[in-house]
This record gives sequence, structure tokens and C-alpha cells, in this order.
Amino acid sequence: MKRVKVAIAGATGYGGVELVRTLSAHPGVELAYLSSESYAGKDISEVYPHLPPGLPTLQALDPQAAAQAGEVVFLGLPHGKAVEHAPRLLAAGCRVFDLSGDFRLKDAAAYPQWYGWEHQAPKLLAEAAYGLPELHRDDIRTARLVACAGCYCTGSLLVLAPALRAGLISPEGIILDAKSGVSGAGRTSLKLDFHYPEANEDLCAYKVAGHQHTPEIEQEASLLAGSPVRLTFTPHLAPMTRGILVTAYGRLTREVDTAGALEVYRDFYRGEQFVRVLTDTLPHTRSVAGSNYAHISVRVDRRTGTLVMLGAVCNLGKGQALQAVQCLNLALGLPEETAIAQPAYYP
Amino acid sequence: MKRVKVAIAGATGYGGVELVRTLSAHPGVELAYLSSESYAGKDISEVYPHLPPGLPTLQALDPQAAAQAGEVVFLGLPHGKAVEHAPRLLAAGCRVFDLSGDFRLKDAAAYPQWYGWEHQAPKLLAEAAYGLPELHRDDIRTARLVACAGCYCTGSLLVLAPALRAGLISPEGIILDAKSGVSGAGRTSLKLDFHYPEANEDLCAYKVAGHQHTPEIEQEASLLAGSPVRLTFTPHLAPMTRGILVTAYGRLTREVDTAGALEVYRDFYRGEQFVRVLTDTLPHTRSVAGSNYAHISVRVDRRTGTLVMLGAVCNLGKGQALQAVQCLNLALGLPEETAIAQPAYYP
Amino acid sequence: MKRVKVAIAGATGYGGVELVRTLSAHPGVELAYLSSESYAGKDISEVYPHLPPGLPTLQALDPQAAAQAGEVVFLGLPHGKAVEHAPRLLAAGCRVFDLSGDFRLKDAAAYPQWYGWEHQAPKLLAEAAYGLPELHRDDIRTARLVACAGCYCTGSLLVLAPALRAGLISPEGIILDAKSGVSGAGRTSLKLDFHYPEANEDLCAYKVAGHQHTPEIEQEASLLAGSPVRLTFTPHLAPMTRGILVTAYGRLTREVDTAGALEVYRDFYRGEQFVRVLTDTLPHTRSVAGSNYAHISVRVDRRTGTLVMLGAVCNLGKGQALQAVQCLNLALGLPEETAIAQPAYYP
Amino acid sequence: MKRVKVAIAGATGYGGVELVRTLSAHPGVELAYLSSESYAGKDISEVYPHLPPGLPTLQALDPQAAAQAGEVVFLGLPHGKAVEHAPRLLAAGCRVFDLSGDFRLKDAAAYPQWYGWEHQAPKLLAEAAYGLPELHRDDIRTARLVACAGCYCTGSLLVLAPALRAGLISPEGIILDAKSGVSGAGRTSLKLDFHYPEANEDLCAYKVAGHQHTPEIEQEASLLAGSPVRLTFTPHLAPMTRGILVTAYGRLTREVDTAGALEVYRDFYRGEQFVRVLTDTLPHTRSVAGSNYAHISVRVDRRTGTLVMLGAVCNLGKGQALQAVQCLNLALGLPEETAIAQPAYYP
Repeated sequence: MKRVKVAIAGATGYGGVELVRTLSAHPGVELAYLSSESYAGKDISEVYPHLPPGLPTLQALDPQAAAQAGEVVFLGLPHGKAVEHAPRLLAAGCRVFDLSGDFRLKDAAAYPQWYGWEHQAPKLLAEAAYGLPELHRDDIRTARLVACAGCYCTGSLLVLAPALRAGLISPEGIILDAKSGVSGAGRTSLKLDFHYPEANEDLCAYKVAGHQHTPEIEQEASLLAGSPVRLTFTPHLAPMTRGILVTAYGRLTREVDTAGALEVYRDFYRGEQFVRVLTDTLPHTRSVAGSNYAHISVRVDRRTGTLVMLGAVCNLGKGQALQAVQCLNLALGLPEETAIAQPAYYP
Repeated sequence: MKRVKVAIAGATGYGGVELVRTLSAHPGVELAYLSSESYAGKDISEVYPHLPPGLPTLQALDPQAAAQAGEVVFLGLPHGKAVEHAPRLLAAGCRVFDLSGDFRLKDAAAYPQWYGWEHQAPKLLAEAAYGLPELHRDDIRTARLVACAGCYCTGSLLVLAPALRAGLISPEGIILDAKSGVSGAGRTSLKLDFHYPEANEDLCAYKVAGHQHTPEIEQEASLLAGSPVRLTFTPHLAPMTRGILVTAYGRLTREVDTAGALEVYRDFYRGEQFVRVLTDTLPHTRSVAGSNYAHISVRVDRRTGTLVMLGAVCNLGKGQALQAVQCLNLALGLPEETAIAQPAYYP
Repeated sequence: MKRVKVAIAGATGYGGVELVRTLSAHPGVELAYLSSESYAGKDISEVYPHLPPGLPTLQALDPQAAAQAGEVVFLGLPHGKAVEHAPRLLAAGCRVFDLSGDFRLKDAAAYPQWYGWEHQAPKLLAEAAYGLPELHRDDIRTARLVACAGCYCTGSLLVLAPALRAGLISPEGIILDAKSGVSGAGRTSLKLDFHYPEANEDLCAYKVAGHQHTPEIEQEASLLAGSPVRLTFTPHLAPMTRGILVTAYGRLTREVDTAGALEVYRDFYRGEQFVRVLTDTLPHTRSVAGSNYAHISVRVDRRTGTLVMLGAVCNLGKGQALQAVQCLNLALGLPEETAIAQPAYYP
Repeated sequence: MKRVKVAIAGATGYGGVELVRTLSAHPGVELAYLSSESYAGKDISEVYPHLPPGLPTLQALDPQAAAQAGEVVFLGLPHGKAVEHAPRLLAAGCRVFDLSGDFRLKDAAAYPQWYGWEHQAPKLLAEAAYGLPELHRDDIRTARLVACAGCYCTGSLLVLAPALRAGLISPEGIILDAKSGVSGAGRTSLKLDFHYPEANEDLCAYKVAGHQHTPEIEQEASLLAGSPVRLTFTPHLAPMTRGILVTAYGRLTREVDTAGALEVYRDFYRGEQFVRVLTDTLPHTRSVAGSNYAHISVRVDRRTGTLVMLGAVCNLGKGQALQAVQCLNLALGLPEETAIAQPAYYP
């Protein structure tokens, strides 16, 4: 297999390190450039001794150097930083896979509202493919810029998609109650909330009625429903390292039992190797941790006319780095599972 | 203070052991009888070395002996066992505080439907006080039989009560997304689901659209609303020992902002020493673990007309044993906080 | 009971907050002054919603104000800060209970060696009582200045004391393998090591052959042995919030079996209400978490002539704040268990 | 690559499931037979939804069928069961890789002493290769029967080997203080000790001075030292799923500093791809979880003449299933890292 040269900007965040782990074993990739502001000059295997030695030395991000080194550039930078660098990388002819939220929203006006800053490259928003292969496979194949789907969004959209597409639930009144492991908070910014004695043995909601992933989910949910969707999204922090569990509630538009609803889901995901619809059991985050798989199931609550939709993904795997590699595989014309077929580590 | 003799049937379950810990330090109580099927003949401080020596030797449950030893009997037995013993204990003149679900539902027909067995003492259902002091303080003061509120129910009802009483949300379409620590599963029945390597680092829902606490919550919610409430209740298992976090969603019936909604909650709980309405922060299970306190807050999602109601309780504290002691204090005419005023231990 | 006015300098660290929790329920104490640099001007119940409202407003530390407000002052300050403030507080007539290591070593020369700074008040080192009641009860009763024992030291010394005093083990070749929960690292300084995703599901040693508690343990062990003790102390970080487990290894000086060794331990701790010698079971940190109790046991490894000594304490309870209150009770002539008799929360 | 047919007896224990996960992605293996007593008749992907569908249906163990299906048989059975089946499988011409302790000890008399049963196939003890490639690579290449090293033993021996071989420490007085995650207890036998609320937030020692891995470690340590080694081994249970951390203490036989001791270790492990000697940092279980890597380091405590040796392995990876695959690779003449090169997933 010919190896494509890949640069990773932001290689020592949790997303970056998952990219390094995965791409260093990818038969179609040669890791050619790794940037890190905190650890410039070091070998990444000193910072993360689980990684193999011999990878390119970490260096402070120089977009020009990244573009020269890599035909493909992954951006694992904090929100607001990717938008600074992507235009130049694209201009230099690179294909760019961005893990941040900087190019996920089609409506530039949503950035000041939800992220608090003006978007400096609004034209790229139209061009960017939304990096959730099960929903946008064709776009991803040919895009110069892939805005890889966020972790909460991946879980939420995979859970909602079949029901919305089939009109099984109303576009109104959807509730998304999402629970994330703490690695979703990243590694760089140490906050008291994520200090072990505070986060351990604790459960809490945060950013209620205001999380910046809300418009991203609504944008894609509206596409699926064919009409505008407004929903309530509540993220929670759970005392575990990895995993997102989404419990979604929708108002059924017609009589259906659990078996019938499951059929709709199985139909939708037929042929999708990374989405598994569970019939007799319910999704567990442990069963997908560290992997690119999503487990989905649904139950009908007939007493209230509610469809309860449940999904588990790994926030750093299918919810981030491994899905980005899935997008890369599509873009390179490789088998979609290249380097990301491994199941979760269990237990 | 005169000491009332107390018997505990089922003293070595997690609820029982919390009762022992609390009542052995209660100035108005003398622990006179402790039963345990698994550890009959042992000193409870051998089984649980954190407990002080010198308590009554554990014995296999003999209701007659319990009734003779205790003026008050706490039942910490598995569901379906309390209904066997309570009638005789009441007939013997004891006051009974039951921690199980056996006397919580007013409608006997709900037992076969939700618990799978016919109720053998339906007349006691009408008589039993529902043991949630903030909602039924007067009943508890005088009842012979107190059906102490379940853990999920305590959290759910404290969260819903002000909004339902004030008509702030519709009685239709309420969603209760509840997350519990694993100690809620009890200690006696070892199941693979609660085997450490399975439960650790995992999050999942269970008994979706069918948990037996649903009718209990609906019964009390209907009383609060003044009209029948049907709701969707989804319990989850979270990787922590203690704590319940309830995230509830209701459809607002009128325009209100978060400040206004909080005002409704503060009004409702004015004077309640064990319920704290948080304004600027959100409830954390850690902040109530091991205590009889509940932390509640609400946020308005104006975009969707939804009231998001959040509450944290300790499943074994306010959700079980400590609340049972709160009920006892009411029944004995003691200050309500006797022996249960201690805050959570943090962190 | 007459209430003594107490000031706490450093009330919002983990040790401080345990002091506040405990002393606010102490019948012989009135909390008169609470300092916090980070939260000056706030009510402590805003910072820690598990604590009751109505306590003195937090203020930046002013030693003069503390001395005026409190007859007794607890210092919950970072190492190196207590030595700045204690002299003035003592001069003002306060009794001082210091939770730091600043006055624990008798040899001033050990400070530059182990802590990296010169001691500015070496005369106080001789005067300070070492705050481990089971070993220095009489000194603590009358001391102006109590240097409360460190968490690792409390666990290690309670485990070693009977064997050393009885000459059961050699003073040479002692190994202390100690494991601590992460709250031992404190709250103030956020470090990547204690970031939840790093500390969770991880176990590691740190400061091997160089931890600053080593000379403190050796000093007290030498007193117990009646001859100089040099030992190897290895601290570990374990993925839990609270608890210290010490596994100590000593070379037996005479033939003894486990029963005989246990007898030595029971004799030593006869009458000690806070130390429990376990015979058939081994110490678990969970059984002492949040409490002032220590659980100890020993086993003889006859094949190698080794005495394996095991002990569990709560690093914030018996290892810190609750033991400091035990010292206060001694100093005030109160029953030693006042406000600290409560067992661990279990589970 | 030609695919060898492999049978796994005991495919649904934690070791078995790791074998399935790893071998199903092994280019030189075809999984031909999977046994499970508990789940006979099911597809393993129903029991473990993280595993891919399409694997051989689980069946109750029939040694004849296993021998027919597989040229190679892995035994993931409880201790005492492998000895029943191995002789027949060998007689049928299979190569056998046993994950249990049944063939690890060379001295048949040690079985009644440490395991409590008489060994029924003592001749095989001499023949079996001890499955720790870094110590017995050549034996493993040619053996019919490989007794894969136990988890504690792997960690302990990798930590001790360089020092013993170099005579850096005395063969007397070695202390092994080992800490294991709870998955080491397996999945089949539910015990209260491993019930989540009991094991979580707890740390304890167990089987002090009597664990059955002791003679296995001593046997191999004696070979390394060239003289009989008796040591004290203390296993602990730590609140995490995976990982073993061994902290070993040896008496230095000569003056050496940490740099010099590290040099001895680096020399010993030169060329070993799965053992990494850390210089500036210390081993963390997280850095090896789920992988076949071992991280080792040492520190000299000059004050006491002690060598502190530290090592981290994954109890199910290098400590069990992945190391068994490493042995398989040797036996098949494949590159040793085939299918097991992946790093830990971090965090």
C-alpha cells in the first residue's frame, strides 16, 4: 500500500494521541510531522510512554512546515485555532481533517452566538464536509476539508437518524440527555472540575440549555428530518475516563412497538460495519470504549407514546480520532475499516 | 432524652447498615434487635468492621422476637418480604418503617403489574403514610406504618414537586432521566452486572419503559399536579458507589425565565432544612453523598419551552436510610434533624 | 459545654473543609474565623454546597485577626506557610494545631534536606508535641503547639509501633509500601498527575527513595524502637479519593506465629478506641474512609521470617483533620471522641 | 500467511475473550472452535457485543472436538481443569497453550501445598515450557505444551530478572508488593469482594504470606539467581479494572547508584520490544493497559542499601492473553509482535 504523508497539528492532546496511536499502525499512512506547543523538542514516547519510539520529534506548530511535510493534515487544536490555520493549509494543497468545531456549522452567524467569536473563513463552512461517514459518506470522499463530527454529536445523531429519517418521531420536543466520560474535557486545560477527587464518584450536568454542540446536532437533525428541529440537549459529566451514552426521547408520530422501531433502525444501518443495533440488550459504553463502533438500541414506552433511543460511543474513538481516520480512509479510497477495525478492550 | 427501643429486620443490607450506623448514634434510640439471614449468630462489627462492637448479636428474623424487642421496627428486607411481616408487627403494636416498595402504592392492582405479585395486605396500603417528609410530614407524624420513599422516587419527586404544584409544567410529557450509583442494587444478590470489572468505567440504561418505581412516582406526581400524570422514567447505572442524579424535563405552561423558575422552587422549599435550592451552581451527587440533604436546581430552555429540573440525593441517605430516620424523628416528636444533620463527607 | 472559639487558617483545602465539617458539629467549639485566599469574601457554603450556611465569611488570612478571633487556631496551610504564622499566633496566646509538616521534625537540619528550606523557628521544634495521640497523648494535652501527624506517617506509625516497641522486628531493613488516595494531593494545586483521566484507572509509585515524610516516620520509629531506625518508604497513588493502606515488612527477631504477633498488637492498643486490631480479616481503606478509625492487622510469613504489618486509615480523617480534632479534644480536656466518633460511611 | 486453526477452551472468561479479540485479528490464525460452559449455543457476539459476529458458535467443551478443530488449543479454564484436558489434547497432536497455573510449577509436590490438589500429570511438568518469552524464548519455540506465565508472576519476574541475573541484589530478603486491578479475579465466580460497591474506592491486601503464585515466582527467580530464592509476596486488590503494579525491594550486594542500576536493566532488556526500561519516569499501569508491553524502572535507596524495582503490566495483556499470543507467534515462527503490537489505549 502506498503511504500518504500525514501531519498532525496538536499531537499531544487526547485526540491527537489517539490519532498517533492509530495512524502509526495504519498501512497507508506515514506520520511525517507532529506538533505540540507544550512538548516541542521532545520525542512523543517520552511524554506518552505507551507510544512507540521513533516517531517524528514534536515541534511547535508551523503551518508551512506542516503543509510541506504532510499531504494530509489533521488538526487536533483547541476550538478557534483550526480556523486560523486551515485556510493556509488548504491553499498549500493539503487535505485537512479538523477535529474541532470550527467548520462544523453551516451558518456562520451561529459562531458568535454559540462559540463567542466571529468566523474568519465563512466560505469554507459551505465547502466543509461534515465528518460523520454514516450520514455524509459521499461528501467526505471528495472533500478538501472535513469537519469531523463532535463526540456528543456523533452519539446523538447516530441515535436520532433512523427515527428522524423515517418520520417515526416528531421533530418537536426531542430531549437529548447525554453523559460523557471526563476525557471529553481534554488534557490541556486543568480545571478543578476535572481534578480527580472532585470528578471521582460524582455525577453532574453542565452547560444546561446552552452547550455549543446544540446547533451542530440541530443542523444535522434538521437535514435528517427534512424540517427544522429544535431540541433540548443536556450534557453530563460521569465518573469514567471514556465513553458517551446518549439517552434520547422523542414523541412517536405513529403506533409502533419496540420490535417495529428496532426494524426501522436495523434497516437504516444495514451494511454499516461500525454501527450495531442491539435487540435484546442495551448499549454499554464499556462495549465500545477505545473503538470506532457505535451501539444503538430503542425501546417504545407505549404508556406515554415516547420512543426512547439509546446509543453508546467512545468519545475519543467513534466520537473523535478513530472516526477521523474513518473519514481519511474514505478520502483515500481505502477500505473504510483500515486501522480502525479493532473492537473495544473489554473489560 | 428517653430512648425508644428499635428493631431492625435486615440489618446487613446496605440500607440496614446505614440504619445501624445512624441509629447507634441517635440519642433517642436504643438498638435492641438486629436480624440478618446471612450472618445470624455474628456480631455485626465482624461483618462490617467499620461499625462499633457491642451491638445486639445478629439473628435470623423472628417477627415475634422483633416485636417484643422493639417498639419501633425498621424493615430493610427485599421487596415482597415486608408485606409478609408488617401485619403481624403492627398487630403486636409496633410502629413500622418499611424501606421496601411493599406499601408505597395506593393501588393494589399495581403490584401484579409492576412487581409481579399479588398484594396480600391491601388494606394497609390505604393506611400507610408515604415516607417523604417534605410532601407528607403530617401523615408521617401519626402513622403506624410508614412506607419510606424509594431512592429514585425521592430524587424525582423533590425535583418535580414545586413545578407540578405551581402548574409551571404540563402533567404530560414529563421525562425523568435518572442515574444511580451501584449501591442502589443492594448487597445481597451478586449479579454479573455489578461485578466490578463490568460496572466500572461503564454507563448504561436498564429497565427502560418498565421500572417498578414508575407508578410510585406517578402516584405522588399526580397528587402534586392535581391531575393524572404519566411520565417516562429511565434509570441508568453509573460507575460510582453512591448517589442519584435526576434530570427531569417538563413542558413549560407559561413564559418564565430561570430566575423566575428558581423563585418557585425556593418558595416551595422555604424552611426545609434538608432541601437546598442552588442558584448559580448545579447539583452534584458528591455534595450530598452519605447525607440526608437534597440539592435541587432548574434551568429554563427558552428555545424549546422546556424546564430542565435537576436534583441530587444520596441513594442510601436521603434516598433511603437517613430519610427513614427523618420519618422516625417526626413520629417520635423529635427535632427532625436528630442524628441526621451531618453534611456529606467531601471529597 | 462551654464553647471555645476556633479559627481555621486555610479553611477551603481538603483538610480545612474536613475541619469545618467536623468542628461545626462539635459541641465544645464555636467557629469564629475562617480564612481562604482563593475564596475571600464568600460564604463557604457557596464554595462547598455540602456545608451549612451561616458560618463566618471567608477572608484572606490575617494572623492578627485570626488570633483575636480564636483562642485556638488550626493551620491548614501549605507546607512552609505555617512556620511563618505560628510564632505570632503563639505569641498572641493562641494554642496552635498545625496540619502541615512545618513542626513535625525535631531536627532543624532535616528541613533543608527533605523540604528544601531553612527552618525559621527551630526553637519551636523542640516544644511542639507530635500530634499522634496514641503515641504522645500526654504531650498533646499540655502543648501550646501541636504538629499534627501526617497522613502517611499516621498509617505507618500505627502499623509499626507495637512491633517496634516490643522488639518483635529488627530496626533494620523495614520496608513501608504505602498507597494513598488522590485527595492526599490536596485541592489547591492542579497538576496533570491528578487530572481525572490521568489518575483514574492508574496506579504508580512516586518520590521513590525521597519522600519528605520519611524522616518523620524514622524519627518516631526510632523513639519506639529505642534505637535509630532507617527505613525504605515508597508512596503510591491509587485511583480512589480517600484512604491510605500501609503494607509494612519487618524482619522478625524471634519465632512467633500470627496469633502471637496479633497478641502483641492487641496488647499495645488495648483501650484505644480509635485503633482496631483485626484478627480474621485484613484492613480495607473503605472501612475507615471519612472516619478517625485505624484498622490494623499482621501476618507472619514463616518461610522468610518476615512480619507483614497492614494498616488502613483515612488520609483526611485519622490521617489529618479528624486526628487534629482528637488532639484538640485532649487539649481541652474533653472526651477524646467528641465530634469524631462516627464510623466510616459504608459502602 | 497460512492460517493455523486454533481452538479456545474457555472463550468467555476475561482471558478467553482477550484471546478471541486478538486472534480474530491475527493474520496467521483461523479461530475454529470456541468453548463456553455458561453460554453454549450462543454466538459470542451476543454475550460480548464488542466482539464481531461470525465467529464459531460457543459450545460446551468437548476435548475431542477441540482437538479435531484446532491444531493449536488455548486453555482458558479455571485452575485444576487444564490438567484434566491437556494430556488428551497433546496425545491428539495438538500444541497446547495453557493460561492456568496447572503446568507452571516443575515440582509436583508444590501443587498439594499451594493449590490444594494432587497433580495428575506430573510428567508434563518437566516438559512444559514456562511461557514468559523474555526468559524462555527458545523453550517456547519448540514446546508442545506452554504453561503461560501468570499475571503477578510476569510482572514480578520481569522486575526481578535483571537484578537477580546480575547479582545486584541478594537472593534473600526480597519483598514483592504487588497491586492488581479487579479483572484479575476473573469473571465467572461472583464474590462479594468484587461486588462493585465493595471493591470500588477500596484497597486491601489478600492471601498475605500464602498466595499460590509465590512458588512460581520463586522457581523462576531461583533460576535467574542461580541459587534458591525465598521471597515475601503480598498481593493487593486495587480499585481499577486492569493493571498490575509490582514494587519489589531487594538488598543491594554492592554499591551502585540509580544510573548504574538502570544500566543493568537496559542491558538485560536490550532488543526486547515488549519491555521498556524507563529512566526519568516511573511505571504507570495506565500506560500498558490492554497491551503486551511492560514498563520497568528501578531506584536505589542509598540510605538503606535497597534496590526499589518497579514494573507495570496489564494483567490480561502481557500478564495473560497477549503474552500467550506472543508465545504462539514464537511457536509458529512468526514475527513475535504479530497481532499484539498495539500500544495501550490512553487514557
